[in-house]
Formats: sequence, structure tokens, C-alpha cells
Amino acid sequence: MDERISLAHGDGGELAHQLIQEVFVQAFGNQQEARLDSACIELTSTNIAVSTDSFVVKPLFFPGGNIGKLAIAGTVNDLAVSGAVPKYLTASFIIEEGLLISDLQTIVNSMAEEAKKAGVIIVSGDTKVVDRGSCDGLYINTTGIGIFAEKNPLNPENIEAGDSIIVSGTIGDHGIAILSARGELGIATDIESDCQSLNEMIYEVLEHSSQVRIMRDPTRGGLATTLVEICEDFNVSMEITETSLPVRREVEGACDILGYEPVYLANEGKVIIIVAKEDADKVLAVLRKFSFGEKATIIGQVTGRDKGILLLKTPLGNTRRLNRLSGMLLPRIC
Amino acid sequence: MDERISLAHGDGGELAHQLIQEVFVQAFGNQQEARLDSACIELTSTNIAVSTDSFVVKPLFFPGGNIGKLAIAGTVNDLAVSGAVPKYLTASFIIEEGLLISDLQTIVNSMAEEAKKAGVIIVSGDTKVVDRGSCDGLYINTTGIGIFAEKNPLNPENIEAGDSIIVSGTIGDHGIAILSARGELGIATDIESDCQSLNEMIYEVLEHSSQVRIMRDPTRGGLATTLVEICEDFNVSMEITETSLPVRREVEGACDILGYEPVYLANEGKVIIIVAKEDADKVLAVLRKFSFGEKATIIGQVTGRDKGILLLKTPLGNTRRLNRLSGMLLPRIC
Repeated sequence: MDERISLAHGDGGELAHQLIQEVFVQAFGNQQEARLDSACIELTSTNIAVSTDSFVVKPLFFPGGNIGKLAIAGTVNDLAVSGAVPKYLTASFIIEEGLLISDLQTIVNSMAEEAKKAGVIIVSGDTKVVDRGSCDGLYINTTGIGIFAEKNPLNPENIEAGDSIIVSGTIGDHGIAILSARGELGIATDIESDCQSLNEMIYEVLEHSSQVRIMRDPTRGGLATTLVEICEDFNVSMEITETSLPVRREVEGACDILGYEPVYLANEGKVIIIVAKEDADKVLAVLRKFSFGEKATIIGQVTGRDKGILLLKTPLGNTRRLNRLSGMLLPRIC
Repeated sequence: MDERISLAHGDGGELAHQLIQEVFVQAFGNQQEARLDSACIELTSTNIAVSTDSFVVKPLFFPGGNIGKLAIAGTVNDLAVSGAVPKYLTASFIIEEGLLISDLQTIVNSMAEEAKKAGVIIVSGDTKVVDRGSCDGLYINTTGIGIFAEKNPLNPENIEAGDSIIVSGTIGDHGIAILSARGELGIATDIESDCQSLNEMIYEVLEHSSQVRIMRDPTRGGLATTLVEICEDFNVSMEITETSLPVRREVEGACDILGYEPVYLANEGKVIIIVAKEDADKVLAVLRKFSFGEKATIIGQVTGRDKGILLLKTPLGNTRRLNRLSGMLLPRIC
């Protein structure tokens, strides 16, 4: 097999056939599980969740993961936070002419590994090759199907004053890891991306509490943007406490230098859970059983319905309103 | 709204929110139908087909369509030829900084229109913005879910000697339309892409014949590559007759000049149907009821099982073997 991807790998002909056989079918399993056209699936329920995401992260490899691992975990998490059990994924690749086939292979193998860990099957795929200069190495789309055993276990319409807001761990790790890997920080950090499939942990949370109102993964736009969206979508107001936010010291340091706020940095392995106050400790206990949930903590509470405002209580005891991310240029973060 | 896409349209914050509301939700319908995260769907069957495709066609606009129409029709057709009824699509956009928002709007509106025509609902979406020079205007991924009423109506394992091979119309139109739109032909042509959702037509074919063995849409790699794949996948041999192939005069002319063979050119609105000989006329009659099926014709037959070879009978009465597309560089055709 050629060392680098050529245009002929994308024309649907002989070389394309070889690439699919030798890289994709090899990694994603036998023809039955990984047919590269329409796949036929028998589901166990007619209630499903569907989610799609294209990944354009730069660079392709970063501390804690690569674009392939991210593409699996990202879509698995989108399904899991919607209350569904992720089952099937499609994977579609836009590859730049000149990409090292060994790099593609590493990335595809990471996908296979993360899919196995998350218990999802890659059922259908697609490969396109674009000429040199027409993409930045590799973009991956994953689209996932999750199953609801019976009905959706989440009840966002029940959000009420007093509900606890929980985050499953430190915020901003992914954002700083990516900026650091790009050499844009001007400083060296040891921060790794938190990129991680959370479905197993989330499933266990839902087994232990029937009072989870809503869950979200705070990716692009960070914790603050995600909470603002919940506030607006469901007309609820919230207050979070700055001193309670779990932030690694290195992330805080990088933010100080760059003028960023950790609440706006992307996360790829964290979940926000809004749950009835009486179940909050139960949920925390479940999260903390997982190594990547050790730092789970209550960061605030719902203060009422109908205003749709997110407030941050500062260390000085003042409060200020948080809005959506705006004007901070953090492109290609996922 | 700004005239061109900026990086801030992709950061998950305020401008991204506006873009989604003003372009995507506007075109794809209300929030209920077009939530831009996980979508919850209730299916009517547990037997489904799933197909994914990323579209990187160059240029974005071409005679007969644009990348948006193509992205809908392409995935609709992939599902339809697998015997499923296409129902739900996801749409994911990778947009280059600097793209005219009006162009994006035109493309997204084409998608909405083609989705409506095909009877599919766009249920989930995603938008990423990459910096100038990191993609070629716009790439779109669509992933589709189709439903099998009971079981898959196709029986490729029943393919046998004597079965008819039908193509639903002229071949090579899309390939030549794209090359022409790129100005790569050095000649002017009036050829339009055949880009078209075929699900309604295919559905009617299946209603009239229970002896359809297999269907495929001959996109990248063209008619010949698609037939070779069927030959190899199911160990059957076929013979097609060159003089019976429906080819527009202008396509033939362009092929003569460029040294291309129409059997290797991409199609985006054609279906190949392999059906028991006794049902062939019935299938032809159904196809010809549709304006885009008028030129449907029998182009050859299955000659036996087990060799996996595709032969072309030339006008002189000789036969030559056709292989997969190889060595003809036709990138970014879909």
C-alpha cells in the first residue's frame, strides 16, 4: 500500500477498494459489521436518539487523544446525555491527499478501540479524498443511534428551584490541551484532553436516580454556554459558585495568561447533570466511582423558573451574569 | 447577519446560535423537527437501514444542482436502493471561513426542498467552521435512516443466470456536468447533472415486482465499477451490451475528446436493477412512467454464478472484460 493517500484512493475504484479493505474493514471488524454502504440493523426498540457531529480538531493528534478517539467519544456522549444507550455509529472520512496512511491507520485504530470500550458498533462508512490544500489532513463525521429502553428517562420540564447542578470533573482541560498542542500558548503545559466516552458512567447514574432532569456535555462554548442554553430552552434561572468550580491549577494558570475564563473552554469528557436536590449525593457517589468522575462536584443550583438567566457568584460574594461564549476565537477545538 | 462566515460562527457561542436559527432552523423547519443536538425519534419498525456519505463536490454549484441537493439525494438513494424507505436524515456542515452566507442559504434551502420532495425529515445537525484555506467552501455529511416495512424485499442471493440488468436512464451525465462546470473540458456542454432522489420510483418498482434481486446507484466509479462490485460480492458473472447503453450524444462526445468511457463516469440519479427476466418488462414500465426514468432500458443479463466477471459486448461482437475504475483521476465528483 502506498505510503500516502493519493487522489485515486477516493475515486471509488481499485485503490479505494484496497484502502477500505486494508484500513477500515481491518479495524472496524468483518464485512457483516462494517459494510461500507447501507447497513441493515435490527433494533431492540422503536424509540431512538440520533446525533451527528463533524470533527475538525487541529492538530489531529493531541495529548490525551486524537481526532478518531474524539469522534467516537463525542457522538457517544451526545447520545448518552440525551438519556439513550448508544448502540450504532457511522463514520465518514474526508481525507487530504498526502496524509500518511500510517497516521490514518493509527486514528482508525483509536476509533475501533474507543468504540469497543463504549460498546458501540460502527455499521457504515464513507471515504472521500480531496486534493492537497482542500482540507487540513482529515475530517471525520460520526453519526450515532442510541436506544431508549422504554421512554426517555430525563424530565427537563420538571426542573425546579433547588435542583442541584453537578459537573463530573475539572473543566477546560480539552480546550487548554488543544491550544497547548498547537503551540499557541507560548508556555508548556502537561494538560491532557479529557476526551472520554461517558456512557457507562451516565447509564449508572440513571440506574441510581430517577430524578435526573437533564444532562449535557459542555463541549464547544464550555460550561457557561451550555448552562445558558438550558436556561433559555427551559426558562429556568441558575446560580453557580466560582469557588466550587473544579479547575486544574495548570488550566487556571493558562487562562490567567491568555485572558480566558475556564467556564468557556471546551470539555470532551465531562457531563453536567441537573438533578433533584435529594438525589444529588447519590449521583455524586456514582460519578466518583469512576476515575474520570473523581472530581465530580455540585457547582450550584436552579434558582427559579421563567427568567432564563445564569449567574456566577464570585469569590467576593458578588454575582455577575454569564452569557453565551462571544468574541473569544477558539476555532477547531473539536 | 454578517455577509460572510467568520470563525466566530463556529465556536458554539452567540454567532453560532444566530446562524443556526437564521439559516438552518429557518430552512429545516421548527425546533421540534430540527433540533441541532440529539434528536429523539419514534420509528415504525425495528428493522432499519443506515447510510452515511460526505459530499465534497467541486464546484459547489453545477448545472442541475448544488452540493446541498446532492447531499440529500445521495443518501436518500443509498437507502432506497438497499430496499428501505428513507425517513430521517442528519446533516453536518464543515464551512470555510469567508463563505458567502447567501450561498450557504441557497444550498441549505435546496436541501430543504429536496428533503421535502423525497419525504424525509432532517432531524439533527451540526456546524463547524474552519479557517480560510482549510476546506474548499463547504463539505456536507448526510446520514440517513430508512425503514423496512417487514423485512428487506431484496434477495441478492437469488441472482441467477438469465436475470435482466436494467439501468434507469442515461449514464455519465453527472460526471460530465461536473467536469464541464469546472471548465476542465475545454468545450462547452449543455449537460445537466442527473442529481435526483429516486426513492419514490424505487418504491413503486418494489410494489410491482417481488423478484428484484438487488439495486445499486452507480455513483463514483460509474456503472462498470458498481456492476463489478456486485459480480465480486455475490460471485456472479454478467454481460452487458455496449450498443444498448443509454448515453447522451453530448456525453459520448465529451468522452471521445477526453478519452473517458461513459461506464466509468459518476451518476447521481440512476439506479441499476437486477431482476428476474420475467419481471423485467414490468419494471421497465414502472421506471418509464417517471420523467427521469424515460430512458430506462435493459443493458444485459446475468450469465452465471461463481466466476465474478463483468463482460462488455462491443459493437463488433467481441467481448472484453471490465474491471473497477482504475487510474482515471476524477476526484471531488460527489
